[in-house]
Amino acid sequence: MSEITPSHEKIQPTANIGVVGLAVMGSNLARNLASREGNTVAVTNRTDAKVDRLVADHPEAGFVASYSIADFAASLTTPRTAIIMVQAGAATDAVIDELCEVFEPGDIIVDGGNALFTDTIRREAKVSALGINFVGCGISGGEEGALHGPSLMPGGTPEAYATLGPILESIAAVAQGEPCVTHVGTDGAGHFVKMVHNGIEYADMQLIGEAYDLLRRVLGHTPAQCADIFAEWNTGDLESYLIEITAEVLRHTDAATGKPLVDVVVDAAGAKGTGSWTVKSGLDLGVPVSGIAEAVFARSLSSQSDVRAACADLPGPAADSEGAAVEDPARLVEDVRLALYASKVIAYAQGFDEITAGAVAHGWDIDRGEVARIWRAGCIIRAQFLDRITEAYRDDPQLVTLLTSPVFLQALTDAQDAWRRVVSVAVAAGVPVPGFSAALAHYDGLRSDRLPAALIQGQRDFFGAHTYRRTDRDGVFHTLWSGDRSEVSAD
Amino acid sequence: MSEITPSHEKIQPTANIGVVGLAVMGSNLARNLASREGNTVAVTNRTDAKVDRLVADHPEAGFVASYSIADFAASLTTPRTAIIMVQAGAATDAVIDELCEVFEPGDIIVDGGNALFTDTIRREAKVSALGINFVGCGISGGEEGALHGPSLMPGGTPEAYATLGPILESIAAVAQGEPCVTHVGTDGAGHFVKMVHNGIEYADMQLIGEAYDLLRRVLGHTPAQCADIFAEWNTGDLESYLIEITAEVLRHTDAATGKPLVDVVVDAAGAKGTGSWTVKSGLDLGVPVSGIAEAVFARSLSSQSDVRAACADLPGPAADSEGAAVEDPARLVEDVRLALYASKVIAYAQGFDEITAGAVAHGWDIDRGEVARIWRAGCIIRAQFLDRITEAYRDDPQLVTLLTSPVFLQALTDAQDAWRRVVSVAVAAGVPVPGFSAALAHYDGLRSDRLPAALIQGQRDFFGAHTYRRTDRDGVFHTLWSGDRSEVSAD
Repeated sequence: MSEITPSHEKIQPTANIGVVGLAVMGSNLARNLASREGNTVAVTNRTDAKVDRLVADHPEAGFVASYSIADFAASLTTPRTAIIMVQAGAATDAVIDELCEVFEPGDIIVDGGNALFTDTIRREAKVSALGINFVGCGISGGEEGALHGPSLMPGGTPEAYATLGPILESIAAVAQGEPCVTHVGTDGAGHFVKMVHNGIEYADMQLIGEAYDLLRRVLGHTPAQCADIFAEWNTGDLESYLIEITAEVLRHTDAATGKPLVDVVVDAAGAKGTGSWTVKSGLDLGVPVSGIAEAVFARSLSSQSDVRAACADLPGPAADSEGAAVEDPARLVEDVRLALYASKVIAYAQGFDEITAGAVAHGWDIDRGEVARIWRAGCIIRAQFLDRITEAYRDDPQLVTLLTSPVFLQALTDAQDAWRRVVSVAVAAGVPVPGFSAALAHYDGLRSDRLPAALIQGQRDFFGAHTYRRTDRDGVFHTLWSGDRSEVSAD
Repeated sequence: MSEITPSHEKIQPTANIGVVGLAVMGSNLARNLASREGNTVAVTNRTDAKVDRLVADHPEAGFVASYSIADFAASLTTPRTAIIMVQAGAATDAVIDELCEVFEPGDIIVDGGNALFTDTIRREAKVSALGINFVGCGISGGEEGALHGPSLMPGGTPEAYATLGPILESIAAVAQGEPCVTHVGTDGAGHFVKMVHNGIEYADMQLIGEAYDLLRRVLGHTPAQCADIFAEWNTGDLESYLIEITAEVLRHTDAATGKPLVDVVVDAAGAKGTGSWTVKSGLDLGVPVSGIAEAVFARSLSSQSDVRAACADLPGPAADSEGAAVEDPARLVEDVRLALYASKVIAYAQGFDEITAGAVAHGWDIDRGEVARIWRAGCIIRAQFLDRITEAYRDDPQLVTLLTSPVFLQALTDAQDAWRRVVSVAVAAGVPVPGFSAALAHYDGLRSDRLPAALIQGQRDFFGAHTYRRTDRDGVFHTLWSGDRSEVSAD
């Protein structure tokens, strides 16, 4: 495996950590690592110029520059530890293969890209068969986070974490004195949790968008007035990075036109795919993640320009359905705040349901309270709210659902009438609230004593002999619908 | 390729069609084929006993029994044509491999199972490389349909369809004198369309379930009263097989308890995965199929028994929110009917959007009017409604969305105020209507002049420099949020 040739042996192993891939994320992570006491950072890149530029621009970092994977490996102390920061997919596989050629058993390869967790599981199996540790590590917080302190979600073995952990702890964001990193679980657990983080982020942004749309279209507020309301909300239960930047974006005036920026931006939202992954995984696990799905679909709907153009003249509410002007605007603002908070609780609960089911399906021992803890700083969904989730799981590590944790139960209880009013106002006014209404339907579905799923089972038994269970005794049954309609056992 | 040994040469090729796999679906399809003039049907199965039983039970069919794939092939006239009716997945691959050993160029292998369309694309490429035709054929209608006339959705080459088409036309269901079969498109097109059919079926069943739940829980109707309402609805715009059997199921009394059957059936709905496939494909194609997704999630929520048990005591609407008793029950019934119809239009429009996008992505020339036409009989979603879709696409083959076709535009216009009232009543009463509300949000989203997607683009540019486009000029832009907040070109 080790093919370190004599010419490389003169390289002294001085770096305790290395970074492969020096685009913005990799460069910033390398600088972050170099800025922490005790770290000496080896860097390499497919093109030498990027290595030279980083080293030249940041002499303070004391980087160990390498121009080949072999030299890079030779410059690392054992166990060699390298973080790959290249594009997810084939590029990542190629670098892993190269590192496996020059690394030795006990060394550690970390993939810091946005890999699909099933790819991470596959890679971990392949690399660990060589005796080399492989750690898929979710990194959240974008370029700024990489430089100043991201939220880190490493998977892999506990043995690898023993070496890697202190290094990651040195560069992570800090929330209430604690670094935002934990050993999430084995193999793909870190990338799985990062994926769900992104799915929750989609849902959170969609819900904020719906709240804004209601303030704008039902109450007639300007973007600047909406900004004031979000800034005010940011001092309460909703306090979070996303609410904070919402106020910033809404307050920003476009220099070219003098209009609010939000009014000159094309209203077709992009996506990078991780929201879609989260929904697909939810489907595979049988977990209803409707809040995340509606957020992904709202983005794709916004980008269906041909269908939207065709539908521009579809009729909206009749004048008499819209009702009078809003009687008490201040109350509606407060109702929207409560509806946003309640819907957010549902979205996060769905995300944690997915983590719970994923852990069972993949044999991961995930401490959900720790997951919430490491999202409290460094990442896009950072918020006070996550303290409450951390506490909920600390109080009851076996908690079946966040919704029944005392603090969230109280919040839902306080919010639900307002939430119902807001959905009613929105549908009467013709303002789309897919996120709010999906969240409310999820809430009402879970608390329903009986669901029409019983009718669906009857239909399925009728047309496809799919059978059903009975509430009053065990077994599987089928009604002879085309016959005398007697019931037979189908065990 | 052909390995027909001397011992097989004495078998006379007398059958023009063969069936491999004689479980219920395969047996019924073979019997259907044998009952049509001009067909002689060869049959084989992994276990000989199933061949013997089918032949013994149905002497009238004149089956040609084969006990090996080689004998089976020898009994077929050229071009040999065989329909595989075994379990989707590895079993299908195994039979395809066996047939490829004994078939010759120009022969036709048909997979009549519920294959994922991407598997069909893969198989078609592999088999056609041998010069053998491979046709993935969606078959809908369950056991009864297979026996008496299914809806058939074949893909594959036009050349294969020239031979196969007349055979399929002979066994298909008939609607208004026309057989429910058409050459959908090449390679996986047939199984793709079958998948979307099933996704639409999920949505349709969920919407019916919500309508029932409202009649039951808001109006206090008994299942028998609900059955009468559905039977009445089945005489109008909603006329369909699913509405018909809904009335049958709701009217059925459980002999053991004397209660309505729907009240003794466990309200946890099962699923076989094709609904989930449809949602995943919609995500891949960027098509919002929220109605199908909510239907799949409603089933998974119903099966989350631990979460439901934990949530049983979540508070519902406060007494003063529930409002008085329904003032005009007859009007609410009519409102629910209109809401169900409007939501159904949205669900089907989403499904046809997915077919449209799938055709573009995979290079299929799919006649959407033909797809609706072949769903008019034989399959679970058969309904008068599909005539209207067929006509919509016949009137305008380039139609961007069904929603703007005159007949559906009129229906939505007529229904929308009622639809809004129904969602309001449901959220006020605490009855979950994920399908109705997702459909309404889709409708209101598509007709919105501006969507909060613009804010989402602003947020994404703020935290991730994801850039945005402007409404007033071409290009890609980024605001220097951490700097002086000026705008820069990001082309």
